Amino acid sequence: MPSKRIAVLSPVAWRTPPRQYGAWETVASNITEGLVARGWDVTLFATANSRTRARLHAVVERGYEEDSSIDPKVSEYLHISEAFEHAGEFDLIHSHYDFMALTYTRLVNTPVLTTIHGFSSPRIMPVYEKYRNGYFVSISDSDRAPGLNYLATVYNGINLKLYPLRKSAGDDLIFLGRIHPDKGVHLAIEVARRSKMPLVIAGIIQDETYFREQVTPHLDRQIRFIGPVDVKGKNQLFANARALLHLNTIPERFGLVLAEANAAGVPVVAMDLGSCREVIQDGKTGFLVGSVEEAVRALDRIGEIDRRACRQRVEQCFSVETMVAAYERVYNTIFELQAQKVA
Amino acid sequence: MPSKRIAVLSPVAWRTPPRQYGAWETVASNITEGLVARGWDVTLFATANSRTRARLHAVVERGYEEDSSIDPKVSEYLHISEAFEHAGEFDLIHSHYDFMALTYTRLVNTPVLTTIHGFSSPRIMPVYEKYRNGYFVSISDSDRAPGLNYLATVYNGINLKLYPLRKSAGDDLIFLGRIHPDKGVHLAIEVARRSKMPLVIAGIIQDETYFREQVTPHLDRQIRFIGPVDVKGKNQLFANARALLHLNTIPERFGLVLAEANAAGVPVVAMDLGSCREVIQDGKTGFLVGSVEEAVRALDRIGEIDRRACRQRVEQCFSVETMVAAYERVYNTIFELQAQKVA
Repeated sequence: MPSKRIAVLSPVAWRTPPRQYGAWETVASNITEGLVARGWDVTLFATANSRTRARLHAVVERGYEEDSSIDPKVSEYLHISEAFEHAGEFDLIHSHYDFMALTYTRLVNTPVLTTIHGFSSPRIMPVYEKYRNGYFVSISDSDRAPGLNYLATVYNGINLKLYPLRKSAGDDLIFLGRIHPDKGVHLAIEVARRSKMPLVIAGIIQDETYFREQVTPHLDRQIRFIGPVDVKGKNQLFANARALLHLNTIPERFGLVLAEANAAGVPVVAMDLGSCREVIQDGKTGFLVGSVEEAVRALDRIGEIDRRACRQRVEQCFSVETMVAAYERVYNTIFELQAQKVA
Repeated sequence: MPSKRIAVLSPVAWRTPPRQYGAWETVASNITEGLVARGWDVTLFATANSRTRARLHAVVERGYEEDSSIDPKVSEYLHISEAFEHAGEFDLIHSHYDFMALTYTRLVNTPVLTTIHGFSSPRIMPVYEKYRNGYFVSISDSDRAPGLNYLATVYNGINLKLYPLRKSAGDDLIFLGRIHPDKGVHLAIEVARRSKMPLVIAGIIQDETYFREQVTPHLDRQIRFIGPVDVKGKNQLFANARALLHLNTIPERFGLVLAEANAAGVPVVAMDLGSCREVIQDGKTGFLVGSVEEAVRALDRIGEIDRRACRQRVEQCFSVETMVAAYERVYNTIFELQAQKVA
C-alpha cells in the first residue's frame, strides 16, 4: 500500500549513502531508494549532504565521523529527536538508529520499526529489554537477542548494478572490511602466507594498535594495504580477485561485503561464525571454514566454485529488490497490527 | 500552589545527593528536599541509590561515574526518557539534565523548566538554540547565553545546617574544587608560596596531566593535597581556614563552594571572572581580585572581613530556602503562562 508515508531514520555517522565505509547508512540508503522506486512516499532523515530520491530532512550538516568539530552526542540527540517530533506526518518510522531511537518511541503514536544492525555491547541490552515489545527486524537469524518482538529477518540487500559480474578469476586474495581484530585481518595474512598468494587489504583502520602491531609488520610485496575504498575501488579489487577472505573472529552479524563479492562473481572463504552460513552456501558460493588450515585447503578448491552461481545467489537473496519486498511485507504486517489495536 | 505535582530530573553521573563531588546532583537534591519541606508533591528521577524524602523514581542503579561497568550513554538515554514517558503524571518537569533532556520536551504536553548548570562546550549550543523558546533558569546573571527564554536567575542554595559558622579564623589557605586548569589550582599554589601560608588542596582530579605537571611537583609540607572530601571533610577544612582561594581562570558559572565557605564564616579570595562578583561582596565577604599579586595583597587584609557578615550574606542570598522560594515563583509563572496558552 504505497499511499502510506514512511520515515527512514538513518545514522549520522556518515553521509547516506556513505562515500566509503558506513554499512548502516548503506542499508538505510538502499531501503530508501528501493521504496521510492516502488512508489512509496519516503522521507529520509540523514545528514544534509546525503543523496536520495526521497524527501531529505536534515538538521545535521555532515557525518560526525567526517568532521571532527562535530560532537557525536549532540548530533545524535538533535537528529533522532527531530524525526520523532515529525512523527505525526508519517504512518511508520523505520529506525536504523540503534537503542537511542527506542527511547523516543513511547512518546509518539506512530509505530516504529527498528532494524537492529548489531548489538555493539552487552551494556546496551537494558534498553532493548525495556522496549522489547516494539517492532524489530534482525539482519540475520544468527544475530538475534532473546525476548525481542522480531517480525522477521530481512537480509541486507545490495544494488547489483554497482557490482557487475567478473567472469574470470584474478590472482589476488582480498580482504575488505574494518581493520579490527573482530574481522580477522591477521588470519587473512596467515592464510595468504601459507597459500603463497598475494593479498590486498582494504578498509578503514578502526583499531590503530591492532593495525600497528598485527598488520603493518607483515606488509610487503605480497601483502599490501590500500586503505579504505569506494565502490569503484571495490570493483577494481573484485576484478583482480581469486577469492575474498573473511575470517571473522566473532559471530558475523550479516556481512554485506560477502554479498558484494559474490555479486561480482568472487567466491568467499568465510569463517563459519554467526551469519556467514546464511550468506555463503558452502561449496557453492564459497567455503565455510573453522580454521586457518581449512581456509588454506579451501583455496586449493576455489576453482570449483561457479562464479555465475555466486551472482545468481545474490540476485535471489541479497538484492535491494528482495530486501525491499521483504520490508514491504513487514510494514504491511505492522499496519495490520496497528489497525487491530485501534479497532 | 503545592497541590501541583513536580518531577525533578537529576543527573545520573552520581548519586543524588552525591557523596562527595557532584554539583548538579547537589543542587537537584537541595531543590527536591526544599520543595518537599514546603509541602510540594515531588518525584525525584535519580539513581536508585539516591536518598530523598520525595518519591524516588529510578531505572538506573548507580551513578556512571561511580561504576565503570555502566555505559553513560545508555544510562542517560534510559533515565531521561523514563521521566518523559511519565510526563502525564506531572504538572511540571524541572530538568537538570542539560541539552539532552531538551530533545524530549516537544514530545510531551507537560511544561519543562531547565536549570542550565553551565554550557560545557560551544558544540552543544545548537540544541539550546533549537529549544530557545523553552523555559530556562540561569544560575548566575553572568552565565547566560543570548536568545534563550530565561524566566529568572536563581542562585544555587546550600543547606546552612551542614556548614556551621566557625567564629575564629584558622591558619590555612584552602582550595576546594576540581583539579583542573579552569579552577586555577596553580594560581592558588603561587599565592600560597608568595604569602608563605600553608595551603590545603581538596578535590577530585579531573585533569590528570595538569595534576601531574602543575600540582604534584609543588606538594610539600606547606602545600598539601588531600583528595576529594565530603561534607565532614569540608567542615574540617573550614575549621582551620584563614581563607578560601578560588582563582578560576575562566568565568565561574556560580561557585557553590564560595557560598559554602562563606556560610562557615570563611572569607573568599576569588578571581573577578563570571559569577564570582554575584556571590562574593568585595571587601565584605571576601575580595575580588584580578591577579596573583592582588590575591597576595588581599590576604594581608583578610582580617578585615567580618566572619558573621559572610554567614549572613549566605543566609540571605544562598540558602536552600531562598533558592526554593525563587523556584516557586518561577513555577507559578510557568503555571500562569500555561493557563494562558490553554485559554
